[in-house]
Amino acid sequence: MFDTADLEHRIDKAGYRREEPELREALLNAQYDLMRDGRFAVLILIAGVEGAGKGETVNLLNSWMDPRHIQVSGFGLPSDEERERPPMWRFWRALPPKGKIGIFFGGWHTEPILARAAGDIGAGEFSRRIDEVLRFERMLADEGLLLLKFWFHLSKAQQKTRLKELEKSPKTRWRVTRTDWNLYRQYDSFAKVCEPFLRKTSTGEAPWLIVPGADPNYRALSVGRQILAALRARLDRPAAAPMAERDPPLLPALDNLTVLRALKLDRPLAKEDYERGLEKWQGRLNGLARDPRFRRIAVVAVFEGNDAAGKGSAIRRVTGALDARHYQTVPVAAPSEEERAQPYLWRFWRHVPRRGFVTIFDRSWYGRVLVERVEGFCAEADWKRAYTEINDFEEQLTRHGVVVAKFWLAIGKDEQMRRFKAREETAFKRFKITPEDWRNREKWDAYEAAVCDMVDRTSTDVAPWTLVEANNKYFARIKVLKTLCKAIEQALGRVKDGG
Amino acid sequence: MFDTADLEHRIDKAGYRREEPELREALLNAQYDLMRDGRFAVLILIAGVEGAGKGETVNLLNSWMDPRHIQVSGFGLPSDEERERPPMWRFWRALPPKGKIGIFFGGWHTEPILARAAGDIGAGEFSRRIDEVLRFERMLADEGLLLLKFWFHLSKAQQKTRLKELEKSPKTRWRVTRTDWNLYRQYDSFAKVCEPFLRKTSTGEAPWLIVPGADPNYRALSVGRQILAALRARLDRPAAAPMAERDPPLLPALDNLTVLRALKLDRPLAKEDYERGLEKWQGRLNGLARDPRFRRIAVVAVFEGNDAAGKGSAIRRVTGALDARHYQTVPVAAPSEEERAQPYLWRFWRHVPRRGFVTIFDRSWYGRVLVERVEGFCAEADWKRAYTEINDFEEQLTRHGVVVAKFWLAIGKDEQMRRFKAREETAFKRFKITPEDWRNREKWDAYEAAVCDMVDRTSTDVAPWTLVEANNKYFARIKVLKTLCKAIEQALGRVKDGG
Repeated sequence: MFDTADLEHRIDKAGYRREEPELREALLNAQYDLMRDGRFAVLILIAGVEGAGKGETVNLLNSWMDPRHIQVSGFGLPSDEERERPPMWRFWRALPPKGKIGIFFGGWHTEPILARAAGDIGAGEFSRRIDEVLRFERMLADEGLLLLKFWFHLSKAQQKTRLKELEKSPKTRWRVTRTDWNLYRQYDSFAKVCEPFLRKTSTGEAPWLIVPGADPNYRALSVGRQILAALRARLDRPAAAPMAERDPPLLPALDNLTVLRALKLDRPLAKEDYERGLEKWQGRLNGLARDPRFRRIAVVAVFEGNDAAGKGSAIRRVTGALDARHYQTVPVAAPSEEERAQPYLWRFWRHVPRRGFVTIFDRSWYGRVLVERVEGFCAEADWKRAYTEINDFEEQLTRHGVVVAKFWLAIGKDEQMRRFKAREETAFKRFKITPEDWRNREKWDAYEAAVCDMVDRTSTDVAPWTLVEANNKYFARIKVLKTLCKAIEQALGRVKDGG
Repeated sequence: MFDTADLEHRIDKAGYRREEPELREALLNAQYDLMRDGRFAVLILIAGVEGAGKGETVNLLNSWMDPRHIQVSGFGLPSDEERERPPMWRFWRALPPKGKIGIFFGGWHTEPILARAAGDIGAGEFSRRIDEVLRFERMLADEGLLLLKFWFHLSKAQQKTRLKELEKSPKTRWRVTRTDWNLYRQYDSFAKVCEPFLRKTSTGEAPWLIVPGADPNYRALSVGRQILAALRARLDRPAAAPMAERDPPLLPALDNLTVLRALKLDRPLAKEDYERGLEKWQGRLNGLARDPRFRRIAVVAVFEGNDAAGKGSAIRRVTGALDARHYQTVPVAAPSEEERAQPYLWRFWRHVPRRGFVTIFDRSWYGRVLVERVEGFCAEADWKRAYTEINDFEEQLTRHGVVVAKFWLAIGKDEQMRRFKAREETAFKRFKITPEDWRNREKWDAYEAAVCDMVDRTSTDVAPWTLVEANNKYFARIKVLKTLCKAIEQALGRVKDGG
């Protein structure tokens, strides 16, 4: 992969001076077009070996373009708030919004490469990490983000020369640290890890762009031209070419037997049994949340369901057992301006709980494959790829020790009608019933199909759906509490005393 | 203060049932009016003794109103990211946006009270903390936030009864911890701290509302009614009554001698001296940033100045000496939707650096007293109170070990004209000159007056302004670098090896 980069590329001062003013003007224009256009974000990943001019290039890009609309993020050691969340959280949190350019100095590639080179992870885990990266980058591409991944390369001989050069001048001596020389000595073992990583994460939507790092002029013009070409190509493409559909259409089961229809929605539970159950399971939940091991896990509880199925009251039975300092309820409504400028899952990632905390989502990312699908708020291709993206998201959560409990509260069509009417009659419940609820009801079958697909495609080993028979509110609430307790108990059982 | 609350207030079941439905309907209506109105945010602070029904009340409010538009924040131990910033940062970060209700379970009152009760801080420091709270709450009120501070009270006898009651029932036994009994034993010494704290932080805009906590019915109706009354009073007030001006008008010095006019803007520095200086001070800055003690401080650098004064190029000389992983440049443009829904300083607080990091503001919170004042983008009362708010903000930063370096880059009117013209002639600099720049230039004198007032009122011991003579860019850049280095050196000198 480095064959071309290993050559001694050079551009002399005169050649550089001839081209540079034109290039920076074109880059600046492209940047301003990007801001005006506002359709997509650009993320420039800066990676590669030490001494190959990564820092210089970042500074140069900042000087060529308008630095106020470039967001540079350096990723050193993660903070505690970052460490207590899945590894990708810190990158999500730093993504540039549409219309802007983000530069990541280091990124999601760093940790897998270092861990593999140090022998901390085996070939299997390395392979899994590569897969995770691929899926993440694919999602970014599908969301319209333009990802440019630069790998700054030096041959071993070039790296040695470069470090010596830097050490010679008092102006730059401070840049060379013992770590740099250590890394130089490990050049070959690093190369053995980097090469397959780069190869496997070079895809059509986001190939690695190898930059020969030895000559500053060549390096600068090379990076600048590639950014310019990529920006221009995307900007000049006609707006919103709809993405090709990649999935076969989803069809219902031939015999009309669905997971929802198979549910017995009326499950009896007498009031006194309910009260006993509530006491038992709220007590249990509270105890679990105060277990010392709870500080090593976290909980994400997702509530979806038919309108008027009792999500709100079920949530309150859960929160009633928890300390208000340790949970957060996130009602999912229309996204804000800052959220709309980001990939779809961004607004959920921002609420991922730290260790020891609970986040309850009142509606969730599943809106994508429910309301957005049924109402046509997003393109077909968008909701179809969402299943995979959601599974990836939830896998990252559970892999990090987060309990993901997902509840679909199901009521029958008749029961819904009874509740709608009751809501209209009770003054203080009137806010709960809107014309939209009546409209949704007309699309009952379409929603039912969407729910069944959702369950089929996102009820996974790591994050199964719990379908809750909710015609009887008492039964539903107890089932939610009990399921949540069981899931947390399992997770606590997995906590190792040392870890 | 607790005389009324100490009485045995009681509302029986029948009385509660009579009033509750009406109250919750009215509360819900008020909440929806608040959302529609969108003019202000509501923050409900829940404080007081253990066992007085704080948690129950939060849950009750969530069940009375629409919980999706209530944001409950519990404040336990601060996270590392919080600990590495000034204490108020975590509260800023959790403020509810306009149109919403936030409930703070615990808040900025907790730490000063606990610290004083434990004897960790003396009377003087306690008094300073009270002052800090007062100024913060005053700012919130001026920003239009409706702050309701509830103090849940129990007499010592009531607290004992309450804890015993809770312990009796298996339903609630888990709620009573050893800590609760410890706190009960310290009742009197706590009361000695709480009483003066409540007294001194009870102001016209945000008095403490004492809630007798013994009887659940009385407590619930009392809190509910007070919230309702406050919400209604504010909602029914005609929109945007302009605030009375509280300051005398600002007049220029009688002899027209101003800090700006006293500056000699042309300061010679030859190119070769500049290059030597650049090498020296960039090297110095880099060394300082890599000093192990640097991880115990942080830097906020603010760049303001005339249009075309060279802010951008001065900033690049600073960032050129830093590791891109440890600094962030924040360009200050129009606030986003989420930012507009918050108090003015919120969008700057969100960028306050952690320990070991540098944030560079390209324009800043001083926009309030510069462009917003001159262009009339905010009310006179708003920019007049901003001086105090800004000083408070910066004092909080420096008190936390953050170096605050503020640069005003000053050029003459002729020099500005030369630069405007040069920018128009150089293609890749053309983006730097807009019609707005020309318009601002027409208001030269008004801006000059605003700058002089700003310097007079915000150049403080803790965060002095550095006026930079910038007709000569070389001179200006070196002065910026040198000043910054000196400020950081001073701060490093203050770092104690143990602390």
